[in-house]
Amino acid sequence: MTSPGLATTTDAPSVPAAALPLGDDALVLAQRLGEWAGNAPVLEEEVALANIALDLLGQARVLLSLAGDEDELAYLREERAFRNCQLVEQPNGDFAHTIARQLYFSTYQRLLYAELAAGDSPFAGLAAKAVKEVAYHQDHAEHWTLRLGDGTDESHHRMQRACDALWRYTGELFQPLDGLALDTEAMERAWLDSVGAVLERATLTVPTGARTGAWSAGAGRQGLHTEPFGRLLAEMQHLHRSHPGASW
Amino acid sequence: MTSPGLATTTDAPSVPAAALPLGDDALVLAQRLGEWAGNAPVLEEEVALANIALDLLGQARVLLSLAGDEDELAYLREERAFRNCQLVEQPNGDFAHTIARQLYFSTYQRLLYAELAAGDSPFAGLAAKAVKEVAYHQDHAEHWTLRLGDGTDESHHRMQRACDALWRYTGELFQPLDGLALDTEAMERAWLDSVGAVLERATLTVPTGARTGAWSAGAGRQGLHTEPFGRLLAEMQHLHRSHPGASW
Repeated sequence: MTSPGLATTTDAPSVPAAALPLGDDALVLAQRLGEWAGNAPVLEEEVALANIALDLLGQARVLLSLAGDEDELAYLREERAFRNCQLVEQPNGDFAHTIARQLYFSTYQRLLYAELAAGDSPFAGLAAKAVKEVAYHQDHAEHWTLRLGDGTDESHHRMQRACDALWRYTGELFQPLDGLALDTEAMERAWLDSVGAVLERATLTVPTGARTGAWSAGAGRQGLHTEPFGRLLAEMQHLHRSHPGASW
Repeated sequence: MTSPGLATTTDAPSVPAAALPLGDDALVLAQRLGEWAGNAPVLEEEVALANIALDLLGQARVLLSLAGDEDELAYLREERAFRNCQLVEQPNGDFAHTIARQLYFSTYQRLLYAELAAGDSPFAGLAAKAVKEVAYHQDHAEHWTLRLGDGTDESHHRMQRACDALWRYTGELFQPLDGLALDTEAMERAWLDSVGAVLERATLTVPTGARTGAWSAGAGRQGLHTEPFGRLLAEMQHLHRSHPGASW
C-alpha cells in the first residue's frame, strides 16, 4: 500500500527523470538565443532566431512541467542542479559560433525526438510535435553552415573555428539518459554521418579533436557546468523576485 | 514623361511616407519587449512577450520594406531619422510599466489597423492580418492591467504609477500621419473610452495630467526622441557590422 502522494511519484519513476536534462537543454539554449534579441545581423535573422528560441521555450515548459514546477525549476535552482549538456550553455560568440552550436544541437535533438516520438514514453506526444520544429531548426543551421562555410575566406575561417571550438562538447550528447532506453550508439553514428555530410558540403573540415572536454563526458548532465553558465543563470534568475504574483 | 526610376516613387507618393513612422513604432517596441528575453517574471510570460515582440517585428519588416531597405533603415539610421512615437521607446521599467505601455499602444494600434484594414491604402493587407495579432496584444495587456490593478496594494500602486508616468506620451498617437486620411479625433475618443473603461475595471484612476510631454505632441514623429532611445538604438545597431553577408 502506498499513499496517494507517493503513488504519483512511483508511477514510471525513471522516465520523468529525463525530463529535467532535456528540459534544461531547451531552456538554456532558448536563453542563449534570446540574447540575440535586438542584436541579430539582419531583421530576417532576428525573426528566425526568436522563432527558434520560442519553440525551445515551449518544449522546455512542457518538459519542466513534467519534472516539477516549471518556474521554480527555471528561476530558483542552483547551478549545480541544472542538468543541461554543456554544449547549449556555450556563449553565442560570433554568428558562426551560434550557427555551429545550432547545427550540432539541432541534429542531435532531431534524432532524439524522432526516436522518442516512435516510442511509448511520456515524451512521445511532445516529441511528435517537437520533431517538426527541430527539423526547421536543423534546416536553418544547415543553410547558414553552407552559406558561411562556402562563402568568403573570412566567413569560412570563422565557421571552421566555431565548428572546431564546439566539437569537444558533442560527445556528451550521447551519454545515456536516466530511464530512457535509447540506442545512443546508433544515434551517435547517425549524428556523425549527418553533421559530417553538412560540413563537407560546406567545404569545412570535420574536426578531429576529442569530443569530450576537460571533464568526463556527461559532466553537464551531472551538474558540472562551464564558467559562462554562471553568468547566464545570474541573468536569467536575478529578476525572478519581481514576479507580480509572488512579490506584488 | 518620367523615368522608370522616378515613376516608382511618384505612385501614391504620400502613403508610403506613413510606412516609416508605423514601421518604426513596431520595430522599437519589438526591441523593448525583446529586452525581457531571459528576464520575464515567469516562463509563461516570457513566451507571451516574445510572441508579441515577434508579431511586431513581422509588422515592422513589412512596413519598413515599403519604406526602403529594411536592414538599412533599422541598423544604419541616425536617431533623428527615426519616426516612432515616444511612447514605444520608453524603458521597460518594472513589469507594470511594460504592461501600461502595452495597454496604451496596443489599444491605439488596434484602432489604427482596424481603420487601415477597412480602407484602400497600401497598408490594407498588412492591417487586416495585423489587427488580429494586435487584438491578442490588447487582450494580454488588459488581462494584466486588471490583475495588477485589482491585485495587492503593492501591485495596484505600481500599476497606477506606471499608468500615470506614461500618460504624457499618449497624445502623440493621435497626430495626423503624412498621407493617411485617418479620423484621428474619432480614434482618440475611442481610445480614451477603451483605456478608461479598462482602468476603471482595474480599480485604477484615469490619469488627469497632460497627454503631451515637454515638447510638442508629435515630437517623436518629427525625430525628437527621449534620452533612453539613444541607448536602445546603440544596443540595436552596434552589432550590425557583424552581418555575415556584409562583413564576412
